[in-house]
Amino acid sequence: MTGALTERSARIVAARKLTRRAGRDAAGLFLAEGRQAVVEALADPAGVREVLATEAAADAHRDLLASTPVPVRLITERAAAALSETVTPQGLLAVCALRDVDAATLAARPPRLAVALAELADPGNAGTVLRTADACGAGAVLFGAGSADPYGGKAVRASAGSVFHVDVVRGVELDTLLPSLQAAGVTVLAADGGGEAALDEVAADGRLAGPVVWLFGNEARGVPADLAALADLRVRIPMRGRAESLNLAAAAAICLYTTQFAQGRASDLS
Amino acid sequence: MTGALTERSARIVAARKLTRRAGRDAAGLFLAEGRQAVVEALADPAGVREVLATEAAADAHRDLLASTPVPVRLITERAAAALSETVTPQGLLAVCALRDVDAATLAARPPRLAVALAELADPGNAGTVLRTADACGAGAVLFGAGSADPYGGKAVRASAGSVFHVDVVRGVELDTLLPSLQAAGVTVLAADGGGEAALDEVAADGRLAGPVVWLFGNEARGVPADLAALADLRVRIPMRGRAESLNLAAAAAICLYTTQFAQGRASDLS
Repeated sequence: MTGALTERSARIVAARKLTRRAGRDAAGLFLAEGRQAVVEALADPAGVREVLATEAAADAHRDLLASTPVPVRLITERAAAALSETVTPQGLLAVCALRDVDAATLAARPPRLAVALAELADPGNAGTVLRTADACGAGAVLFGAGSADPYGGKAVRASAGSVFHVDVVRGVELDTLLPSLQAAGVTVLAADGGGEAALDEVAADGRLAGPVVWLFGNEARGVPADLAALADLRVRIPMRGRAESLNLAAAAAICLYTTQFAQGRASDLS
Repeated sequence: MTGALTERSARIVAARKLTRRAGRDAAGLFLAEGRQAVVEALADPAGVREVLATEAAADAHRDLLASTPVPVRLITERAAAALSETVTPQGLLAVCALRDVDAATLAARPPRLAVALAELADPGNAGTVLRTADACGAGAVLFGAGSADPYGGKAVRASAGSVFHVDVVRGVELDTLLPSLQAAGVTVLAADGGGEAALDEVAADGRLAGPVVWLFGNEARGVPADLAALADLRVRIPMRGRAESLNLAAAAAICLYTTQFAQGRASDLS
């Protein structure tokens, strides 16, 4: 292939650094791989520095690439493999600007529904929660300091494009931000298997109707005790079966779906 | 370590075959790794052939291993690594009998809530759906022919012990089994983003109150058209946000949690 960037070219060596968090933060960029992610990225061309495509991918996605003002560069299959975090590289990547919103901006205009993640470990969960939050109409996902990075390859893939829809706030000190949201009238609910309130009761009595932030914790350890104490309410998901707990992404889906409905009912009535 | 089974011993070579589906089916056995899974396995000692533990694991889990009638064999760290499908082997595994229930048995006494999976591809999703089904009180999960195997290492880990709680039916021809369940009075609901009914409406109008099987499809392609056509109803999860769809495990969590409640309400009233 003539003119295609190889894995040794300076541009690909630089892009490869975006597969690590330190590299992303230093450059202010991240990689979005595959057609779905690239379509979502290109919906805001100003946020995309360039698209990288193998010859085969450029051919397969000709329609998409012909209609964007963003520069498209050909890369070799090996370069695509070097940038991919999947077993079967898709040969199509967008180099995107990080989309962080700062905590002060968020606190000044809190969305009606948001999610805060404290010490979340798994990048796949980070992406899945973003996708679920997006589906349920949440305006922002706050990643506490020490949480998995939503801009990593696995997280971006799991988000299925939602990283481009929802405000992302990263590296947040939740013990400072959550009280400032509470001061602005937001109810903070900590998802906690041992919580004093049951989700169905909270949904029925109207406590989900106003602006809400749902706080989820680490997959193994749950919400850190200091943050759970700070929440307005610790909420458990009542379960009839024998499993001790739900997977974090499943719990988040149930809480956010329930809240979407409780808020919808409230706005239908108002 | 004297007397510990190495990765070259016949017993470990045989156990290693259980990391592949063909090996599990031939032997009628599977591996459950880590303390949580082994605790759940040992709750029914008759279903466990032996426990394999490194010296360090035997030491760390002395309490657990001292109280079981199941034979415990020491293995080397290398043997543990050979049997593990994780990056950091836990050094503790139970060799368990497959727990399949046959389709005829299930059809003769259908549970009030069950899940059917058609062409599910991801083993992690297989395990997560088992865990969610267990949490929501489902009695069985039916894995259609061609679905991921719930007895693989990744699936067992994701199930967090629930593979030992819920009836597992594998290799099912769903186009035969689902009609026989319908004939027995079970309502078959296909989860389908383009479904004609919305989950909240179905929950409100009482259609989730009786025995229900929820049918989920492939992560990318959804429920196969022939099975969707056969369902009593195709149900969509209403979403306010911009995401095109939910992750399969998230969708299953919402459907099963909603059904658990609808059925609970019905039994409270009766």
